[in-house]
Amino acid sequence: MSTKRPLIGVFDSGVGGLTVLNELLQQVSGADYIYFGDTARLPYGSKSIATIAKYAIGAVKCLEQQGAERIVIACNTACALALDQIMAATNLPVIGVVEPGADAAARVTQSKQVLVIATEGTVSSHAYRRALATRDIDAREKACPLFVPLVEEGWTDHAVTEQVAHIYLDEALRGWSPDVIVLGCTHYPLLKPLLGRVLPKEIALVDSAESTARAVAAEVRSNTGEPRVRFFATDSVEKFRRAGEKFLSRKIDNVQHVDMD
Amino acid sequence: MSTKRPLIGVFDSGVGGLTVLNELLQQVSGADYIYFGDTARLPYGSKSIATIAKYAIGAVKCLEQQGAERIVIACNTACALALDQIMAATNLPVIGVVEPGADAAARVTQSKQVLVIATEGTVSSHAYRRALATRDIDAREKACPLFVPLVEEGWTDHAVTEQVAHIYLDEALRGWSPDVIVLGCTHYPLLKPLLGRVLPKEIALVDSAESTARAVAAEVRSNTGEPRVRFFATDSVEKFRRAGEKFLSRKIDNVQHVDMD
Repeated sequence: MSTKRPLIGVFDSGVGGLTVLNELLQQVSGADYIYFGDTARLPYGSKSIATIAKYAIGAVKCLEQQGAERIVIACNTACALALDQIMAATNLPVIGVVEPGADAAARVTQSKQVLVIATEGTVSSHAYRRALATRDIDAREKACPLFVPLVEEGWTDHAVTEQVAHIYLDEALRGWSPDVIVLGCTHYPLLKPLLGRVLPKEIALVDSAESTARAVAAEVRSNTGEPRVRFFATDSVEKFRRAGEKFLSRKIDNVQHVDMD
Repeated sequence: MSTKRPLIGVFDSGVGGLTVLNELLQQVSGADYIYFGDTARLPYGSKSIATIAKYAIGAVKCLEQQGAERIVIACNTACALALDQIMAATNLPVIGVVEPGADAAARVTQSKQVLVIATEGTVSSHAYRRALATRDIDAREKACPLFVPLVEEGWTDHAVTEQVAHIYLDEALRGWSPDVIVLGCTHYPLLKPLLGRVLPKEIALVDSAESTARAVAAEVRSNTGEPRVRFFATDSVEKFRRAGEKFLSRKIDNVQHVDMD
C-alpha cells in the first residue's frame, strides 16, 4: 500500500480561488496542492468564452506537467463558460465549483427559489441556472461587476460597498423572495459579513468553496501529515503574495513565476 | 510629392485609449489609423512592469507589421512603466501620453502644484511626478483603482461614483491646494462632469488626450480626406465594439480579432 500523498491542482484566474484552497486545506488536509493563479491575464469575468477556455486549458496543462493528479477549477467564470472544453483537454479528473455550489443551494433552500450573484461572464453563461434547474430550483442570476474591484480595494466592510450591494440586491430581489443566495464568485465570500447586514435575515448565503472541498474529500484518499502547497502566478510573485494573503488564512511562500505567453 | 496618407498606430490595453484616438481624429484628420486594444489581457493598471512591457511590445510589433509608421502609446500605465522598453524595441517614432499630459498641466497651473490621479501601476511608477518635476512643478499622485470599473459599469454620473470620488479626492487634497488635476488614465475623461461637481471650482482638470494629439499634429504632415480607422482587439470583437462606442464618438466597425498568446 502506497503512502504517497495525492497531489491536487487548483486553478483560478487570480487569488479568489484561494478561498477554495482554504476549504480544501481544512477538509482534505492529507493531500498536497499546487495552486495556479493566472494573475497576468485576470480578470476573466468580462472576457469571451474562447479567450477564457484558451487561458484555462493552458493553466491546466501547466498543472498537469507539475504532476497534479486531479484538477479543481476554483474559478466560477472558467467553470461556467469552459468546463466542457477544459475536461476535453485533459485526462485528469476535473471538478468545478458550479455543481458543488448548486448542491449546497439545493441542501439549504426550502422555497426552491435561489438567487445567484456572480461576474458578468458567469451570469451570461446561465451555468448556475441550468445546474439549479436540474435540481428543480427556480434560479435567477444577477451580475455584480463592482464586487471584485471593491474586494480588491480592501473595502470589504465599507459604506460604499454596502451602498453598491443595496443597489445590486434591491434590483435582483424586487418582487421576488428567494431563501438562498449563492455567491457565484470566489471573491464574494469576503463580503459575507457585509451581505449579511444588507440582506433580510431569512435569506441564507451559500458559497461553493466548502461544498467543492466536500466533493473532493469524497473522491480522494487522504493521508496524514501537513499539506504542502506550491503556488504559480503568471504576474509578479510579490503581488500574488500580497494580494493572496487576504484570501488564504496561512502564510504564502513558495510562489514561482510562470510565463504563459 | 507623395500624397500617401500617414498611418498611425494607436495602442491601449483596452478601449480607454479611444479617448486619445478621438482627439487624433479631430486634430490630425489627414492621417489613417490602426487601433490595437489588448482586451484579452486588460487591465494593465495592477500588473507588474515585466508583464506590461512584454504585452505592450507585442502590440507595437503587431502595429508595425500592419504598416504603422508611427506609434502612439495611448495607455498611461504602459507609458509610465515601460515607455523606454517599448522605444528600444521598435525603430518607429513613439509618443506616449505622460509627457504631453505634463505639458498640458504646465500650461495651465499657476501655483505650480498639481495632483495626478491614475491607476495603481501609473502612480507607483512616479512617471508623472518626474515629468512634472522637470517642469518645476510640485506634483502629488493618487491611485483611484475603482474609477475604471465604475466607468466600465456605466456609472459615470452615479451617486456611488460621486461618493468614491469624494473619498479619493478628499484624501489627496487634505492640507494641500493644487490648481490642476491631471487625469492620468484614459478612462477618466468620462468622469469629467462628475469630477467638476465634486472639486472646488478653482481646480482645472486636464487630460493628456488633447495634448497628445497636438504633439502628433506637430510632427505629422496631414493630408486631406476622411481618416480611415481599423481596429484590432485581442478578446471578442463584439465586446470591443460594444464597450468602445462609449469612448469613441463615431461608429466602430472594421474590428479584427488578433491572438497574441
